[in-house]
Amino acid sequence: MFKRVLIANRGEIALRIIRACRELGIETVAVYSEADRESLHVRFADDDVCIGPANSRESYLRIPRLIAAAEITGADAIHPGYGFLAENAEFAETCAASNITFIGPTPTQIRTMGDKAAARAAMIANNVPVVPGSPGPVEDVDEALAIAEKMGFPVIIKAAAGGGGKGMRVAKDADDFARSFQLARSEALGAFGNGSVYVEKYLQRPRHVEFQVFGDKHGNVIHLGERDCSVQRRHQKLVEEAPCPVMTPALRKAMGDAAVKGAKAIDYVGAGTVEMLLDQDGSFYFMEMNTRIQVEHPVTEMLTGVDLVKEQIRVAAGLPLSVMETPELRGHVIECRVNAEDPQRNFQPSPGKVETFHMPGGNGVRVDTHVYAGYTVPPFYDSMIAKLIVHGRDREEALAKMRLALDTFIVEGVTTTIPFLSTLMSHPKFVEGDVHTKFLEQEGADLFAR
Amino acid sequence: MFKRVLIANRGEIALRIIRACRELGIETVAVYSEADRESLHVRFADDDVCIGPANSRESYLRIPRLIAAAEITGADAIHPGYGFLAENAEFAETCAASNITFIGPTPTQIRTMGDKAAARAAMIANNVPVVPGSPGPVEDVDEALAIAEKMGFPVIIKAAAGGGGKGMRVAKDADDFARSFQLARSEALGAFGNGSVYVEKYLQRPRHVEFQVFGDKHGNVIHLGERDCSVQRRHQKLVEEAPCPVMTPALRKAMGDAAVKGAKAIDYVGAGTVEMLLDQDGSFYFMEMNTRIQVEHPVTEMLTGVDLVKEQIRVAAGLPLSVMETPELRGHVIECRVNAEDPQRNFQPSPGKVETFHMPGGNGVRVDTHVYAGYTVPPFYDSMIAKLIVHGRDREEALAKMRLALDTFIVEGVTTTIPFLSTLMSHPKFVEGDVHTKFLEQEGADLFAR
Repeated sequence: MFKRVLIANRGEIALRIIRACRELGIETVAVYSEADRESLHVRFADDDVCIGPANSRESYLRIPRLIAAAEITGADAIHPGYGFLAENAEFAETCAASNITFIGPTPTQIRTMGDKAAARAAMIANNVPVVPGSPGPVEDVDEALAIAEKMGFPVIIKAAAGGGGKGMRVAKDADDFARSFQLARSEALGAFGNGSVYVEKYLQRPRHVEFQVFGDKHGNVIHLGERDCSVQRRHQKLVEEAPCPVMTPALRKAMGDAAVKGAKAIDYVGAGTVEMLLDQDGSFYFMEMNTRIQVEHPVTEMLTGVDLVKEQIRVAAGLPLSVMETPELRGHVIECRVNAEDPQRNFQPSPGKVETFHMPGGNGVRVDTHVYAGYTVPPFYDSMIAKLIVHGRDREEALAKMRLALDTFIVEGVTTTIPFLSTLMSHPKFVEGDVHTKFLEQEGADLFAR
Repeated sequence: MFKRVLIANRGEIALRIIRACRELGIETVAVYSEADRESLHVRFADDDVCIGPANSRESYLRIPRLIAAAEITGADAIHPGYGFLAENAEFAETCAASNITFIGPTPTQIRTMGDKAAARAAMIANNVPVVPGSPGPVEDVDEALAIAEKMGFPVIIKAAAGGGGKGMRVAKDADDFARSFQLARSEALGAFGNGSVYVEKYLQRPRHVEFQVFGDKHGNVIHLGERDCSVQRRHQKLVEEAPCPVMTPALRKAMGDAAVKGAKAIDYVGAGTVEMLLDQDGSFYFMEMNTRIQVEHPVTEMLTGVDLVKEQIRVAAGLPLSVMETPELRGHVIECRVNAEDPQRNFQPSPGKVETFHMPGGNGVRVDTHVYAGYTVPPFYDSMIAKLIVHGRDREEALAKMRLALDTFIVEGVTTTIPFLSTLMSHPKFVEGDVHTKFLEQEGADLFAR
């Protein structure tokens, strides 16, 4: 087992990883930018290194500084968390070249799944259903238009190197196509340094259903059930739950088998998420695979009792999976992401000093946060200040718990999405489980008004 | 089901009950003394009534004020929590006379178990083993001494009406006996208005092992496993865990059967706790039964997944138990009571304003608290400011989680028992599970030094 793990991240996930390491008897090294000097992850780690100024390009994204920090502090492994360098194959390679274990999949696996077109090709080769679309990147607008017309509109144009909603454009019809294509290309180029895009059929009201998969270095790959993340705003998840409200045992078997097949296709090692679209007719399609721990991983932890971050560390150290088949999925779990944003101002970030902070607690309530009363939310990073996760015996109980937890979550000093989430938890369609990835766009006006 | 429940309590248990009611769709009424005006239970309840000054004799213990508050606010049930009037048969009777459901057992059940001698007699009549001792209260010191000499020293003299460590004295030998007997009598008279005492054999190094029992109005009685509460200071529990580290399936069956038999002996309805002493030779003895929800109930909730407070409300409303047999006991749970006390000054209370309050969170960590940064801990009530409960796959994982949770629990402004608990969690004997009810007395000096 590792002796010291450097955590190449900040915020709640850095704390989460410190906890997992401590439970395994492993020392931790925190890195921080000058803006994060007062952060809890710095306070709670065994050692810490300042790696640069607030701008993450000069700190959390600077591979040489992270490697140097690991070498100075004697860390023998690095956990990348999510975001930042978590899906950067070069970082994983540099770790290996420096004799530091990267806690995650291999550079090749990261690269394959990071290239959306390559991932798609790998899935097609392994009979995992994918959304109908171009076989690979399309450079020429006329060629792309021909593909789109053959599939039928609407279509979606996506950055091959993308993720997180950047470099994505929907084209409703042929007239709309050329402009959307160019916009997606230039956005992709700006965001990822790579203007390659591909074209896919655009599903009207699909659910986002993802499967947590896990592989070890001994060839075992399992899934740990699904998460429904249909409530999104501009492709950013706001609420996640499990089980998916419309899931059936047969569908779970079919989707879970596909997810495991997809992961096995690349001999996947570590925690991964196979994101799929579930259409209203019950058909499902591979969308992408994230080769890292997910923000919403606590949903699966509370449903299965498996600690996914500890499992990542164990697997990276060469141990076999501690569970060899899909565990029993107990009860129902809902997670809300609490962001320091103002829903009434188009979810504009609301950084600043948190004056009052009272977290909900009690039976079946989990809060993952790095925030405390007196903490200043910096403007430089993502605006999530807490994840609120509740576990109930069934969906109704989980909903009741979540409503109450939101009502008793008091944050003063910064504007948060708590009132918005609270309204959402009582929205008739959400209560019915009748949501899809465009739900918020369609129902948003009422929800954001409060 | 009830429409409105009045909560005749304060602090974390008041919040806990509000949560349970809200999940069941029941409105809540908070009552508060003038010292608790800024409390979260007042903020989170649907309605609230001030019932008097800080002194609990003039507020939380004033039956007519509580009944009036319920009548004014239209509450159809009262939950007493723990402490205050929770085991007051007169309060339960007054509720019934006012057509308000008392969420707890019947006045007769409260009375039988509240009178230690009557409880003992009921157990003997039902073949539940009790600690050898006088068949009932003994008024005469010579008669008591004769009983003590026949059982063999040491013996313990206990208030018949007592609880919580008051009116208890150990006599090491015959010389010591008369003085201890008189001290116990006068303490009992002062604390309970009743000087009756009885005499029992004093076990040298027993464990405190209690069983959570639950009965409904349809004659069903089950147990939900045990809790080991051996770590005590002056008969006050500081740490509770489950399963008991020395428990075996056969012993659990024997002790659990005895606990259920004891509860059935009085047709028990509601949540109750059968406290037993487990001697080093594996024999066990009924000590007393608490006819209310226990401070440490979250241990059982996390081990079994059953919400005990919701179950109390359901049962009081006439519904059958939602589980009809002992549920699976999953993993290992430890609870630490965090008190605003100074262990270096003999656990003297340390009330005052909480300046910083950062609760631990994450996977398998539960905090039940009414405290927030800016809250002032009043000097009038008990000094517990939070319950920290962790759930691990096994005891080792739970211990690691608890150590980390304590290390990342930041309270500034008042002195707390967190550093003491932290030391305790690494104490070799506690780590081994080798504790008994006098453990802290014997090992205390080292522990309190930190």
